[in-house]
Amino acid sequence: MKIGIVGLGLIGGSLAIDLRSQGHQIYGISRDLETCQIALKREIADDASTECEILSATEIVIICTPIKAIAPTIKQIIPHINPETIITDVGSVKQPIVEECSQLWQHFIGGHPMAGTTASGIDAAVANLFTGAAYVITPTATSKPENVAKLKAIALELNAIPHVCDAQIHDRAVSWISHLPVMVSASLIKACLQEEPDTLELAQILASSGFRDTSRVGGGNCELGVMMAKYNREELLRSLLQYRQNLDEIVDFIQQEDWHSLEQTLQTNAKARPKFLNT
Amino acid sequence: MKIGIVGLGLIGGSLAIDLRSQGHQIYGISRDLETCQIALKREIADDASTECEILSATEIVIICTPIKAIAPTIKQIIPHINPETIITDVGSVKQPIVEECSQLWQHFIGGHPMAGTTASGIDAAVANLFTGAAYVITPTATSKPENVAKLKAIALELNAIPHVCDAQIHDRAVSWISHLPVMVSASLIKACLQEEPDTLELAQILASSGFRDTSRVGGGNCELGVMMAKYNREELLRSLLQYRQNLDEIVDFIQQEDWHSLEQTLQTNAKARPKFLNT
Repeated sequence: MKIGIVGLGLIGGSLAIDLRSQGHQIYGISRDLETCQIALKREIADDASTECEILSATEIVIICTPIKAIAPTIKQIIPHINPETIITDVGSVKQPIVEECSQLWQHFIGGHPMAGTTASGIDAAVANLFTGAAYVITPTATSKPENVAKLKAIALELNAIPHVCDAQIHDRAVSWISHLPVMVSASLIKACLQEEPDTLELAQILASSGFRDTSRVGGGNCELGVMMAKYNREELLRSLLQYRQNLDEIVDFIQQEDWHSLEQTLQTNAKARPKFLNT
Repeated sequence: MKIGIVGLGLIGGSLAIDLRSQGHQIYGISRDLETCQIALKREIADDASTECEILSATEIVIICTPIKAIAPTIKQIIPHINPETIITDVGSVKQPIVEECSQLWQHFIGGHPMAGTTASGIDAAVANLFTGAAYVITPTATSKPENVAKLKAIALELNAIPHVCDAQIHDRAVSWISHLPVMVSASLIKACLQEEPDTLELAQILASSGFRDTSRVGGGNCELGVMMAKYNREELLRSLLQYRQNLDEIVDFIQQEDWHSLEQTLQTNAKARPKFLNT
């Protein structure tokens, strides 16, 4: 299959590597000429260009730009592609993207391969990035089943696990397990920083793996954190408000010295957590 | 030196192994005869007994029982030890223990070697558990400097890093980096469990390393979680209330769509976090 990949960063580049190794012909687009040259030199793509003309014969185009660039990018490529071409994306939020892009292109189907590293750019692109990862596909009522099937097949070729669901349910689910943890963890670091200097310094000295793990996602990529909040605002607020209720409940147990209820909550959690661990 | 260790679990057993390997004579006490037999068989202790008589010649006794048993244990051993014997403990909260035990024994000095694994019991005891770990020592105004020096020397023999500080400052610092993260993380798991079953199931499928890390300490040992809250209640409530303010601030930024302030907070965090990482 001829596959276009627009945006040759970590995700786009890694998709290109794996799909090309499966025998597909990969047409890569980047705004940056040097990135195109690297893509060709590393044989990540069969052809790479800053111009959308090379997408003319592609059956699927995967938009791998930052979220805010997805719709503008689709507008740019539309004059150059076949009317039957499937366009998909890799954005980590789906509802606002699907809403806007379905209006732009009849054969747009949202996608979210849930893999990544802290690195970025084409130099970070690697083989097998998606092995074992979830690959969410969010068709609408008007999406053609055969197009959904084609995207599922792509996910399977990446050794990822395809999950087809509604865009809003995707956004709700990732709010719980990805976006809420960022804000919870960020608030932890911020709260510690309010302590007076001497005690803060001792806390920093004594901190070990518990603090390291709980603070990790709250001390990560700021741009990504803001983007999550901006594009998944409604679902994130919903989960934050539920979270605050459960935090208040724990504060109450401790204030009331209700150790039995606190223990029950911690027991329920310890029992429930393994269901969230996919190893 | 003749050293008594009361409570031969993970911490007591591991202390015994390392201190014996440094040439000290170790006298181990356990309520459980089988534990004593294992301690002798594995050569963890030079002598081990369920009876406190064997502590009569010890210069230092380290109480390694659960927090609630520390004061009762000290009362039990007092009739059997030399008036100059130093008693210390390994409890993860210091202020209430130091307050009570200093009344019981003039030469009591609180201690907290900050190491551990998820395992427990004498079978979990290992060599070098304390290497590189902080070992907090919390003397009072009446503690003899030479006794503090002896405990610091013990910490150094364990390849741990001794930190001498006030018991309350210890409790405040560990509230930030150990006890608060447990409650923050517990509230995250509890909040997710409020979601309706289908979305929860998708969330569980999509959860990956971000959720795993942020939820780890909140899905851990329930008994330990309750114990922290019970014995460090005041400091934990203080840090929880500060945390709630910072959480509310983030909720406000998102509600107001104040992306600039959200980004600034996340940037401050990303910059501050490395100071908490001791590798």
